[in-house]
Amino acid sequence: MRTAIATVSLSGSLEDKLAAAASAGFDGVEIFEPDLVASPLSPARVRETADGLGLSIDMYQPFRDFEGVGPERLEANLRRARRKFELMGELGAGTMLVCSNVAEDAIDDPELSAAQLHRLAEEAQQHGVRIAFEALAWGRHISDYRDAWAVVERADHPALGTCLDSFHILSRGSDPAAIERIPGDKIFYLQLADAPVLGMDVLQWSRHHRCFPGQGGFDLAAFMGHVRAAGYDGPWSLEVFNDHFRQAEPERIAVDARRSLLALGEQVGAADVPPAPRAERFAFAELAVGPASGDRAAEVLEAMGFAHVGPHRSKPVHQWRQGDARVLLNHGDGHAGDDALVSALGVESADPDGAAARAEDLGAALLPRRRGPGEADLAAIAAPDDTTVLFCRTTSGRDLWVGDFVDLEGHPGGDECGITGVDHIVLSQPFDYFDEAVLFYRSVLGLEPRSAQDVAAPHGLLSSRALEAADGRLRLAITVPRLGGGDGRLGELQHVAFAGRDVLGSAHRMRERGVPLLAVPDNYYEDLEARTDLGPERIEALRAAGVLYDADDRGGEFLQLFTEMIGDRLFFEVVQRVGGYDGYGAANSPVRLAAQLNNVTQDGRGVHA
Amino acid sequence: MRTAIATVSLSGSLEDKLAAAASAGFDGVEIFEPDLVASPLSPARVRETADGLGLSIDMYQPFRDFEGVGPERLEANLRRARRKFELMGELGAGTMLVCSNVAEDAIDDPELSAAQLHRLAEEAQQHGVRIAFEALAWGRHISDYRDAWAVVERADHPALGTCLDSFHILSRGSDPAAIERIPGDKIFYLQLADAPVLGMDVLQWSRHHRCFPGQGGFDLAAFMGHVRAAGYDGPWSLEVFNDHFRQAEPERIAVDARRSLLALGEQVGAADVPPAPRAERFAFAELAVGPASGDRAAEVLEAMGFAHVGPHRSKPVHQWRQGDARVLLNHGDGHAGDDALVSALGVESADPDGAAARAEDLGAALLPRRRGPGEADLAAIAAPDDTTVLFCRTTSGRDLWVGDFVDLEGHPGGDECGITGVDHIVLSQPFDYFDEAVLFYRSVLGLEPRSAQDVAAPHGLLSSRALEAADGRLRLAITVPRLGGGDGRLGELQHVAFAGRDVLGSAHRMRERGVPLLAVPDNYYEDLEARTDLGPERIEALRAAGVLYDADDRGGEFLQLFTEMIGDRLFFEVVQRVGGYDGYGAANSPVRLAAQLNNVTQDGRGVHA
Repeated sequence: MRTAIATVSLSGSLEDKLAAAASAGFDGVEIFEPDLVASPLSPARVRETADGLGLSIDMYQPFRDFEGVGPERLEANLRRARRKFELMGELGAGTMLVCSNVAEDAIDDPELSAAQLHRLAEEAQQHGVRIAFEALAWGRHISDYRDAWAVVERADHPALGTCLDSFHILSRGSDPAAIERIPGDKIFYLQLADAPVLGMDVLQWSRHHRCFPGQGGFDLAAFMGHVRAAGYDGPWSLEVFNDHFRQAEPERIAVDARRSLLALGEQVGAADVPPAPRAERFAFAELAVGPASGDRAAEVLEAMGFAHVGPHRSKPVHQWRQGDARVLLNHGDGHAGDDALVSALGVESADPDGAAARAEDLGAALLPRRRGPGEADLAAIAAPDDTTVLFCRTTSGRDLWVGDFVDLEGHPGGDECGITGVDHIVLSQPFDYFDEAVLFYRSVLGLEPRSAQDVAAPHGLLSSRALEAADGRLRLAITVPRLGGGDGRLGELQHVAFAGRDVLGSAHRMRERGVPLLAVPDNYYEDLEARTDLGPERIEALRAAGVLYDADDRGGEFLQLFTEMIGDRLFFEVVQRVGGYDGYGAANSPVRLAAQLNNVTQDGRGVHA
Repeated sequence: MRTAIATVSLSGSLEDKLAAAASAGFDGVEIFEPDLVASPLSPARVRETADGLGLSIDMYQPFRDFEGVGPERLEANLRRARRKFELMGELGAGTMLVCSNVAEDAIDDPELSAAQLHRLAEEAQQHGVRIAFEALAWGRHISDYRDAWAVVERADHPALGTCLDSFHILSRGSDPAAIERIPGDKIFYLQLADAPVLGMDVLQWSRHHRCFPGQGGFDLAAFMGHVRAAGYDGPWSLEVFNDHFRQAEPERIAVDARRSLLALGEQVGAADVPPAPRAERFAFAELAVGPASGDRAAEVLEAMGFAHVGPHRSKPVHQWRQGDARVLLNHGDGHAGDDALVSALGVESADPDGAAARAEDLGAALLPRRRGPGEADLAAIAAPDDTTVLFCRTTSGRDLWVGDFVDLEGHPGGDECGITGVDHIVLSQPFDYFDEAVLFYRSVLGLEPRSAQDVAAPHGLLSSRALEAADGRLRLAITVPRLGGGDGRLGELQHVAFAGRDVLGSAHRMRERGVPLLAVPDNYYEDLEARTDLGPERIEALRAAGVLYDADDRGGEFLQLFTEMIGDRLFFEVVQRVGGYDGYGAANSPVRLAAQLNNVTQDGRGVHA
């Protein structure tokens, strides 16, 4: 499986783009004409640079509005094409992309288009290059891949083939099955892009919202099934116009891009990646804390009923535990300053080594780990927000991480305040890298993404997306501001949501023990009473506990209890799922976020106390 | 003309929103239910707060999916409504907005809807409140304002009227003329929103992309003509869901919002604002410079053929001039650090006092000015990017600013290097305030905006929008990153484009004089030759001069010459318009931006030299 990427998919100068593509392991590139035109490098120098990096230049693109024109325009177009063929010779690019004419005055005559493309192919052949003709979804008369192929077939020239672009085909809702009727050797090129399902103008959709395979809503596995059945064996090339990718670090986006192709290749049996062992649960959540935030976090955990199991044998890290919920406070990490942040997640599976091998194959760099004698050998990688993901086992083997901690009192793992485990963890992501994060967790950890949801925070909209293991025992949600800009207030919160047996009971027990719980406004309960038939007693019980309520339409219920902030970015939640409720209480998030802003607690202390 | 705004249009807590609305001069607010539900203030306390700020609570909104339901649902809805009527009594809100049912299972029966709304109105009346029924553009069966009115008319209850929302009406392309057939006293409320013309799903369009009147593409003046003809005399209320506004400073957005209503009121003769005197040209561009950047700017201006006219009589500001182009270097402003930035624009008109009075009426704060004895009395305001706009006259009157400068040698205003004046000035804008900036320049200065254009910079997309005086003699363009995020590289450039008599001649003269000109890649000229019929000689002349070329389809031509950067954000351009060319060379901007990134000049010096 040969991989390529169009330079327009990456940011920076042409040199930056080539370097990023090579470093991520791509075999080739498509050079987007404006990138070359704006470059101070001559075409020959670009070729040298690509050669030096081990990249082939698979395509030069695009040449627009060539066919379906009058005779005078045809001559001008041929003159322009000859100049580009010469340039392609210097570049060492063997194939030119020609897109179907989009001009208002394009002539609707397939025979004319075929004849004109034949002439172009004849000239191309003399220059030793090939023409790949593609239907743009908004082409004036040729907008379907079957029509483009019909013209190519009619033109019947060895230097003329077609180019398939998954966006142009799937965005129109065209059935890709007829791809199988195109001879594989007449498919000169394959461009892949995914896209979220957006009800919008296809041109705007295409120019701003394409994404890498697996990041959108197209069924690219089925698409590739047809392409492979047709016998295509050329490069799988990414041509992705995306506003975020255009401004992000090209090295990072190139890694994301190649990962998307490998994951797609795996899906259709064209790439060989070690399988993802089932992520069974979070073994632990590790928080980086400073001196004051460390004291505060320990105080809150203790009040919440967690027991201090003991310190790590060689590092300034302490294990806290209640039921199966384990929290590590890392007092020596330093990267949170005196704030408290989720710095690492322990992901438990039956095969941590296999998980790490897969991660590495998918472009996640293994992090170096300092390890004392006899300590567990855990493989660690960095997630897109720099959270460390450690692959581990809690019960056996050399990756038995709990053995690295002193167990002061042989802690039995009771649930003093009704916490039985970790329900989910919510991490905020860097703005331009949200799609990367979704693909990372999906492909590297084998989680299933749910659809994204908007959440109205007092200072702007957030997007939130959950990713879950197939059995629902490991749940992660990631959030990002819907726009950049803003001042970031409340946009970067993280939290660990613990699973509770009886959240109302936990609330009362925790309040007695001095846990700083978030104050929920009375107006919330007034509205809850008006819009549900919970009845006054149940409402009063929720109000007295400061617990938020959600329900699904199959009778499932969800109870949520929040602490105040620990520092500026982190808080804890305790949740209870009843009757198969499978969501995250998104309807309550605006109330919770406003309460966090209001910065007032039921016992009168500030959020940052 | 009474003005109101929905709390959902602003960011922050409910208290923040009320304070911002009052401070911008609004008379009333619509309280959006989620803002109340999330607030720690009781309804009675909200009422007190609004009273204290001089704000009425004109509407409580919205109540959804009330009508077109089965009998059981109706009873539940009525129970919910009663709770809300009680709450409205505490709030002091007299009108409730009820939106047409959007549920899949809504019943398509106008008679049933009318009967159910009649029952609701009857209950409302008992609580002393009124119901305003509105058709949502995506209502299941009632999506047109005429259908909503027909149901209201059929229900025939004194406590039931309709609410008109310009977005829901104009987004569907409905003809607003039939508004005139609704009795004015049955229009219980009016919500105004504009929106850019976007080919997208109407729900997404409505929830994320509404904007204030005059910021989008709807003809709200015509719309208001019909509303006024119907006899409506209630508040003009802004209900604007906008991702940017939701995360911006509420005080600032409230000022922008009220400005939009005043400008609309002026258009239809409902508001009395002093007229905008014609902005005739830029009297000057003032640059804030530091010690090194000041020396560099003076050196470059001198090399470009500008003469040092002399210093200001009382401030560390120097006037430089060539032809009618005047540049002030302000060595004492300090806010640019040691960078160079456009800090002020002198806008010349026949009536600077009138321009300032208009600006103040439209919510622009007049800036305090330090003035020596006998110096010109110039009114100054701050533009959205904090650039100072000074209203002045160059030729006569007490605002004759040139008299404040010493004229060392009685400078004749020659054009040593062919510069005859200022063609346009380009300023970058803060991300969340771009719509505000467009409205500011349009309404305060009376400029005409052109449509926005995307520009592909090497590190992301920019949006650029030109605003021009009616006679085309004053041209301003403003740019903003299309997304937030990114690292801001090249997204925040400013430049002053001078008008040249003969840009090719200027280029050679300036190169001789040591002006650091931006290097244009050879590939640009290769492509220009391939795609135009300029011919080798003309291409060679452009290449030798380092001049970029653009043409329109009516034979107009545009020549552009750029300097290197002066500091990190500022550069100069010299342009020549031939044959009525009326654009800004947007097609060349990616090449220019890449050349700026490439940071290489024809004489081998760095951009930041």
